[in-house]
Amino acid sequence: MTALSNNAGSAITAGAPVDVIVSEVGPRDGLQSIAQTVDLDTKKRWIAAEADAGVREIEVGSFVNYKLLPQMSDTAELVKFAAGIDGLTVAVLVPNLRGAEAAIEAGAHKISIPVSASETHSLKNVRRTHAQMIDEVAQIRQRINTIDEAKRPYFEAGIATAFGCTIEGPVPVDKVVELAVQLIEAGAEEVGLSDTTGYANPRMIRDRIRAVHGAVGKDKLNGVHLHNTRGLGLANAAAALNEGMTTLDASLAGLGGCPFAPGASGNIVTEDLVFMLESMGLSTGIDLSKLVQVRSVLSDSIPDEPLYGFIPDAGTPLGWDGSRVNAP
Amino acid sequence: MTALSNNAGSAITAGAPVDVIVSEVGPRDGLQSIAQTVDLDTKKRWIAAEADAGVREIEVGSFVNYKLLPQMSDTAELVKFAAGIDGLTVAVLVPNLRGAEAAIEAGAHKISIPVSASETHSLKNVRRTHAQMIDEVAQIRQRINTIDEAKRPYFEAGIATAFGCTIEGPVPVDKVVELAVQLIEAGAEEVGLSDTTGYANPRMIRDRIRAVHGAVGKDKLNGVHLHNTRGLGLANAAAALNEGMTTLDASLAGLGGCPFAPGASGNIVTEDLVFMLESMGLSTGIDLSKLVQVRSVLSDSIPDEPLYGFIPDAGTPLGWDGSRVNAP
Repeated sequence: MTALSNNAGSAITAGAPVDVIVSEVGPRDGLQSIAQTVDLDTKKRWIAAEADAGVREIEVGSFVNYKLLPQMSDTAELVKFAAGIDGLTVAVLVPNLRGAEAAIEAGAHKISIPVSASETHSLKNVRRTHAQMIDEVAQIRQRINTIDEAKRPYFEAGIATAFGCTIEGPVPVDKVVELAVQLIEAGAEEVGLSDTTGYANPRMIRDRIRAVHGAVGKDKLNGVHLHNTRGLGLANAAAALNEGMTTLDASLAGLGGCPFAPGASGNIVTEDLVFMLESMGLSTGIDLSKLVQVRSVLSDSIPDEPLYGFIPDAGTPLGWDGSRVNAP
Repeated sequence: MTALSNNAGSAITAGAPVDVIVSEVGPRDGLQSIAQTVDLDTKKRWIAAEADAGVREIEVGSFVNYKLLPQMSDTAELVKFAAGIDGLTVAVLVPNLRGAEAAIEAGAHKISIPVSASETHSLKNVRRTHAQMIDEVAQIRQRINTIDEAKRPYFEAGIATAFGCTIEGPVPVDKVVELAVQLIEAGAEEVGLSDTTGYANPRMIRDRIRAVHGAVGKDKLNGVHLHNTRGLGLANAAAALNEGMTTLDASLAGLGGCPFAPGASGNIVTEDLVFMLESMGLSTGIDLSKLVQVRSVLSDSIPDEPLYGFIPDAGTPLGWDGSRVNAP
């Protein structure tokens, strides 16, 4: 049984209070972009090890068409497993109502639906227009409302390609704001901004967060999902912190990307993000040394995949007061 | 003849006004850390090509003991060559008065002396205590003052290990502030903060810049020198911009480091920095596409050295309004 006691978003995370929730998305965003399949047992070890290192939230998989993404076919089992880890918020991605039904049945704590600000990307990614996606969100809200209030999963809409699209190019900030308003009206408790394509920069991060905050309220946008495709991932993360973001997605060893946005590879690296946050005096609840050790689960199971990250190579600074990582 | 008309620091740079001076330090900081020697002709082509791409300031070398750093033995010739490039500010590093004499004789526009906030590092790097280094600064100021005012080089002291030291560990902010005050009093026109060891984080950047600004005035600290050892280089650069910094050092392809601070490799990558700045709407005067092409000078002359950078691999975003870089 998890330590969940309410449904107040990031506040659902149990354990000692932290300043920033680092949400590990590797088992979903990381694995969906690589060719090799990782078996259920390895995924369980990965999730358990990260939770043991202090990670409070993990996106364990997605309820999608498994013919397209066979890596995700064991998501229901993973949700059930992860929900048994005390204090862990178990998040999943769903593209539609059917996925949400499966997520609810499995017992996910948090359900995210990606809605692309670029309609072209949306059509390519989930074969849905904006209007169809907003309708999907409304239907999921109706379905969630049939559940006992105390047991409802938290429901978030992630605005994908919120900083630009590899197919459409620039995405107007007005489109992102309009979509955020529509998604909240349709019943999402919160929206997130996703730099699916690695197009964001610190100024854009600042401006778009402020614009969305202005339209839907500060409490309705607390997290961003960043990629490091052009090396600006951590600069963007720092800019997001300046705007009050409290949930940052990242992927262990930088595994992952978006298979439907060509060239848009590379989540920000969880290890480096945790190092940055803790160095800045922001508590994550995560033991960095233990976190770095979790990389061995990946290097053992998918030895051909490159593992990224600076901290595992460089080590933490001499005299650093967080959990120490020794350079090899 | 250069287009220099006065000695007002960053303002000495000619050409159209820019928001941020990206100061290329590869020919000095990059080359001093690698084993292979690059010949004079190659260095000239590198410098000329970067200037042609719009780079306004280049640290072309250092006047040091050439037995220790043979890579730098042609610095005088490089200064003379680079001073003939219209609009280019020619900077050099000097460890002492003797180096400054050579810099003045060669015709450098800007002279930087590194003074390490960690006295242990200072003793190891230049075999001088803090008191000796401050005396050196005072002597260089006296020497510069013997020159016609219109022809004096700009004189800056770079505070090395300003964010921590690989030998001493944490460096107190009070030590950095104290040193900044002493260096300005001794006659440096400006101080810079150098993250020699890659220990900085965005909050530390903010706090230390503010502390130094408070002690010596905002006009006396305008630039930082950052390394990317732990992946935080661009995050730190963005934090420095927030504090009003207008000069940022970087190295083409991330070449370089400090040979006397073990493990402290990797300047921030000029190409990625320029991409970040231009993406944020800050003008650098640099054509990114041309800049990326300069990498071929390095890959042809030092083929065994790894060349870093995200933009050369990922390309610029679709619809980006700066100079376009195509991913391979």
